[in-house]
Amino acid sequence: MGKIAYIDKWRIAETSFSEKYLAKFESIMTLGNGYLTLRNTHEEVYPTEHRNMFVAGIFNRFSPEETTELANFPDISKIEISIDGQRFSLLSGETTNYKREFNYQNGEAIRSFDWKQEEYAFHFTFRKFASMSNKHLIVHEIKIKNLGKDARITFETGIDGTYTNSGTQNFLENERRFFDNKYLYLTTKTTQSKVSVSLACYTHLDVPHVSIPQMGRRKIIEKKQVELKSDQSVCLTKQSLIKTQRDVKYSGKDYLQTELLTELSQIADQSYEILQKESAKAWQDIWDQGEIEIDSEDVKDNLLLNFARYHLHAMSPIHDDRLNIGAKGMTGEGYKGHTFWDTEIFILPYFTYTYPEFAKSLVRYRINGLAAAKANAKRNNYRGAQYPWESAWLSDGEATPKLGGVDIVTGKQSPILTGLIEHHVTGDVVYGGLQCIEATQDPKLKVDFFEVIMEAARFWASRSVYNKIKDRYEILDVIGPDEYTEHVDNNAYTNYLAKFTIDEALRAYYANDENSFKVQYQADINWLTEVSEKLYLPIPNSANVIPQDDTFLKKEMIDLSKYFESNSIGTIGLDYNMEQISNLQVCKQADVILLLQLFPEKFDYQTKLANWDYYYPKTLHDSSLSLTSHCNFALITNQIDLAYKMFKKTFDIDLGDRNMNSSDDGIHSASLGGIWQNVVRGFGGFTVQDFHVTITPKLPKQWRSLSYTVSVFNATIKVDITKTTIKTTLKKGTLSDIVINGKTLNFDKEALSVEV
Amino acid sequence: MGKIAYIDKWRIAETSFSEKYLAKFESIMTLGNGYLTLRNTHEEVYPTEHRNMFVAGIFNRFSPEETTELANFPDISKIEISIDGQRFSLLSGETTNYKREFNYQNGEAIRSFDWKQEEYAFHFTFRKFASMSNKHLIVHEIKIKNLGKDARITFETGIDGTYTNSGTQNFLENERRFFDNKYLYLTTKTTQSKVSVSLACYTHLDVPHVSIPQMGRRKIIEKKQVELKSDQSVCLTKQSLIKTQRDVKYSGKDYLQTELLTELSQIADQSYEILQKESAKAWQDIWDQGEIEIDSEDVKDNLLLNFARYHLHAMSPIHDDRLNIGAKGMTGEGYKGHTFWDTEIFILPYFTYTYPEFAKSLVRYRINGLAAAKANAKRNNYRGAQYPWESAWLSDGEATPKLGGVDIVTGKQSPILTGLIEHHVTGDVVYGGLQCIEATQDPKLKVDFFEVIMEAARFWASRSVYNKIKDRYEILDVIGPDEYTEHVDNNAYTNYLAKFTIDEALRAYYANDENSFKVQYQADINWLTEVSEKLYLPIPNSANVIPQDDTFLKKEMIDLSKYFESNSIGTIGLDYNMEQISNLQVCKQADVILLLQLFPEKFDYQTKLANWDYYYPKTLHDSSLSLTSHCNFALITNQIDLAYKMFKKTFDIDLGDRNMNSSDDGIHSASLGGIWQNVVRGFGGFTVQDFHVTITPKLPKQWRSLSYTVSVFNATIKVDITKTTIKTTLKKGTLSDIVINGKTLNFDKEALSVEV
Repeated sequence: MGKIAYIDKWRIAETSFSEKYLAKFESIMTLGNGYLTLRNTHEEVYPTEHRNMFVAGIFNRFSPEETTELANFPDISKIEISIDGQRFSLLSGETTNYKREFNYQNGEAIRSFDWKQEEYAFHFTFRKFASMSNKHLIVHEIKIKNLGKDARITFETGIDGTYTNSGTQNFLENERRFFDNKYLYLTTKTTQSKVSVSLACYTHLDVPHVSIPQMGRRKIIEKKQVELKSDQSVCLTKQSLIKTQRDVKYSGKDYLQTELLTELSQIADQSYEILQKESAKAWQDIWDQGEIEIDSEDVKDNLLLNFARYHLHAMSPIHDDRLNIGAKGMTGEGYKGHTFWDTEIFILPYFTYTYPEFAKSLVRYRINGLAAAKANAKRNNYRGAQYPWESAWLSDGEATPKLGGVDIVTGKQSPILTGLIEHHVTGDVVYGGLQCIEATQDPKLKVDFFEVIMEAARFWASRSVYNKIKDRYEILDVIGPDEYTEHVDNNAYTNYLAKFTIDEALRAYYANDENSFKVQYQADINWLTEVSEKLYLPIPNSANVIPQDDTFLKKEMIDLSKYFESNSIGTIGLDYNMEQISNLQVCKQADVILLLQLFPEKFDYQTKLANWDYYYPKTLHDSSLSLTSHCNFALITNQIDLAYKMFKKTFDIDLGDRNMNSSDDGIHSASLGGIWQNVVRGFGGFTVQDFHVTITPKLPKQWRSLSYTVSVFNATIKVDITKTTIKTTLKKGTLSDIVINGKTLNFDKEALSVEV
Repeated sequence: MGKIAYIDKWRIAETSFSEKYLAKFESIMTLGNGYLTLRNTHEEVYPTEHRNMFVAGIFNRFSPEETTELANFPDISKIEISIDGQRFSLLSGETTNYKREFNYQNGEAIRSFDWKQEEYAFHFTFRKFASMSNKHLIVHEIKIKNLGKDARITFETGIDGTYTNSGTQNFLENERRFFDNKYLYLTTKTTQSKVSVSLACYTHLDVPHVSIPQMGRRKIIEKKQVELKSDQSVCLTKQSLIKTQRDVKYSGKDYLQTELLTELSQIADQSYEILQKESAKAWQDIWDQGEIEIDSEDVKDNLLLNFARYHLHAMSPIHDDRLNIGAKGMTGEGYKGHTFWDTEIFILPYFTYTYPEFAKSLVRYRINGLAAAKANAKRNNYRGAQYPWESAWLSDGEATPKLGGVDIVTGKQSPILTGLIEHHVTGDVVYGGLQCIEATQDPKLKVDFFEVIMEAARFWASRSVYNKIKDRYEILDVIGPDEYTEHVDNNAYTNYLAKFTIDEALRAYYANDENSFKVQYQADINWLTEVSEKLYLPIPNSANVIPQDDTFLKKEMIDLSKYFESNSIGTIGLDYNMEQISNLQVCKQADVILLLQLFPEKFDYQTKLANWDYYYPKTLHDSSLSLTSHCNFALITNQIDLAYKMFKKTFDIDLGDRNMNSSDDGIHSASLGGIWQNVVRGFGGFTVQDFHVTITPKLPKQWRSLSYTVSVFNATIKVDITKTTIKTTLKKGTLSDIVINGKTLNFDKEALSVEV
């Protein structure tokens, strides 16, 4: 049974209905536009579905025992169909020609099939999209052609506020109205964050029918009945608008109501086609700005890239600098919409070098989060600003849950330590922000980010402990990116980032004479300087291996081949519990490999290779962040075939048909950002070094060509790489020179071409 | 397609699976034992199911905008079955020999069928019951025999706290544990009423299998996998225990945990059969105490009676006098588990005359509710005690929701007025309580009820308004039992009950010299006496018709035949809105007919007949309370055939197969009590008049015989009625005489027999 068809570089399809894979397709085919997302659940209900609609930034924390989470909105996507009183379901009857397609180019989902039961026979087509041109709009269309006996078709749809986040009710009792005999309206408020939200919808049939509005608890729906004779067709269109008080200038439910109903009446007579084309046009504008194309033997390479790009835009609330990107975007309840370091290290580069304005909004989120980060540091008895490991709404502070799954051994829920001791995020924020500032050269952003750097540096200095015997500062009891080892001292990744942060703070302090905030840090400079000078950085040992932390290299090594061979991730957890894994030389992802990428200029080629040889065989890639960073590093160490193999494996994280449950709770945002980095920075060889753009392509042999567009230093460059030439074209702005394959070329004309 | 088979006097069955009728069978086949109920949802999930488990008295009010309601408990009834990874559902595959049976004698639900899909074939049998001997216990059993190819069967079940009341989350985030590698445990608390509840379960398979505990958000489950070869069978047993802090002497979750786990381990090795037999025995003890049997041409008459009796016990929390009976018992979310006047007027007589101890508990609920009723009166600017129209937990006071369904005309939700102006409940409470006290002659109850009568009388006196012109007291702006007319003055039912209450208060005051509470009412006596003397009672007009209220007889009459002919109830609402109906001479149920039954001695036969002739043709029986009281009255007026016809119609309210959605939100408690009243008081002719037991049977010609047992004046009498004899047997206690067909006979021996 074929589960997924990869149609072309923009489209995938599910080719037969299966209840087993509902969650996977709901996630990877999520409709979204950065403002809202709608998981691609079927119109008709299945018991194991996860019907979620999220609006970026609408978090709620139901009770102190729970954590703040993206609230699952009242639903507008359920459209139940009855045939002569019997609820339609693909579990019953006989379905043929089933095809459920998603187009990542325009965000449209189309499902069609023939369906028979007894003497009933119909052809169904469902279409839907979340508009990229009107971010508050979702449009559904259902076409049914009767190929069998006459039947009464009943559609039942409206706004259903009974949905929760897995049983957690994030909205108060709602108010419902029925306007002008056609518009359904529902307004409610989150229980704790007290954000008013409103939804309005209009459902229209193209044939005469009976329409009955009905109100149930927390929901208002319309029943539309049509007598569909054999050979006749009916087309339903449903337009739904969603807004919150944050979207309007004046708050209050009446204002939302007026605005929604006015807007709904304005688009009520516009067809699905017209609305869809407007949305597709907005998507195309995005693609045009960041033009990129892989010509590979395998079209799935380009599809993977486009899948990643679609989701990066569908999930990223760049319209509001109080919002950031969730670790699963807004494609599911996993990680509750929280932002991690994934943004700065994995995702931000995509926006920094392709849509710099979007990137700035994401950096501003951290600037806007400074107050909460300071409060967080204070609560934990540190100085400066400590960014939360998981963050949600800016003022929420640390949003990491306290307890995880049940420990089979003790029967109790395991504590989650990341929120307590995984601290490197405060370095990551500075690293990503500075990269964006360097690339965009935005003076205002630079000034505003100054305080972030200074406060982050103060955090790191206060986080460091002076070791008298060794006369050095150390950072003790942390978790590095490799979460398989908890409670470690002097984690290489963490210590290097801390040092980087403090050094950048000192540099910014001395460089920026005009910054009015400067004076307040005068008293800290000696302290920061001392910690910077004496902060211990794990250096390569006699075998040229940088120890991941103080004890890693002394831990037991075991034969990992069994886990490498497994098709699933995390299989080591079936044999060892967390404490046991913590005492083995095994990495979820290798910290040192990631470290060497962030600071490639600090280490020579031999050191890089030695560390690869040491850590790679110990790395299980049980984090979805791992593959793309290791792929990148394989390219840094010139292992193109291996890198391409890893790129291929990345496909399986969300898009593949091997592990059909890996995306149930949502797709993997960091991996998506990593995919773009692999293509453009890895294979495409794009880097920025000392204010020079450098292009050093390492195309896999399977790729005939690669074109990409990058924006840097206010210039936009198109890069076209084939087996024989590297052509760079200046599309916008100016650039004095560019380094291609190590050779500096003056950009004295619009395009430069180099033979290789 | 046969929907329901009526097997015998104790059993019904659904004979083919249909998703359409899930809710009906869930309701009418609800498992229950007075402490808890479990709607009879299938083990496997269907999208349109309503999976509810309630524990009596565990109410919660999620927010001030909502009303207090029975909280839907974390679920233990869901048992998902997968066959080689595919979720089992009756929507798929081919099902034959389907039978879903419920046995009202022992409360056991059995479902069995053969099921085939491709090369898979199985015979399934599901059994379950809520134990009547251990009221905290629910037991499930699943037997699967493999009749097709080898398959891996996976059972997934545990405790799932993600369930809500239609989207309203009544429980806080829970804590989950897994004990001794086999017991699942979950504890949580209601969000507002803060009642701790805990559940524990143990699932056992009779063949070797793999067991995997899993924890999700708000739930803890176990996956049990067995490789089931062709011709092999597997049997799963699941024992679930449910307790709340109200069930244990010491509060605190650890105490609940200890108790639940100890009890679970004690019964863990007991078979389904043993536990089921213990429960059946407890049910049989109940039936033995209230022995009753109809020998009719149609076995459905006895089935209807047994159906009613089963639910009356399944729904009645007589173990705790802080609890009362819900208008839909605990069989669904309808009416949110609230208690109405249904208890005193319709249900209480069953307990009063069959299980007097149970009845006393229900009367004590009103005594215990006196403080809240006083507060209620005060809030509404009345004196005394005003019982809430809808009541839940004693201290909740008035629990009637403020808003109902959407008014199609205005598009707004309609206000619900009953909580504001349907006041007769305060008379009903006194009427029912006094009847119970008279029958049981319980001196303590009598003393304790004294204050209820006095305070209710004070309420009625303060509720009455003096009309100077007419020199009389009037009760203005009420709703009577006939809710089709709102905002009426001097509703006959209400005024007579008010007068009755005040008169009973005066009588109790003068009769009871020893009551220490008496002195506090001294100052009220003149006032109560004056209101009693001058309270206006609508009397028969020139045509001998008692006006239902001041304006009813002047309202427009329309042709109602269309609505009488309809198979559904409430069809008049499709043509008229509430305001319009309010201005017609049409009754949902006829107040005057009910009034004449409560006070039969006050009116002569001619008046009774005249009022029947006037109101009966205007009564649509759109309330489920209507049929049984009208049936009773038809018997009072000697219309036996008509009465039997109405008794037959009562069958359709819940048990029938005509309107398959009438019981979706739960069964109709008042109707159940009415059914018993029809049989024993109506056809069986049992009444208590001036401290004499009278038996005046009016058997329908279709009944060969009727036997029933009644308890009154601390005696228990068995009555056996045939076409030719009436035999009364004293089973317990003493009784000096009995009036049979108008003749007073001395009870000088154990049994008396009279030829007719």
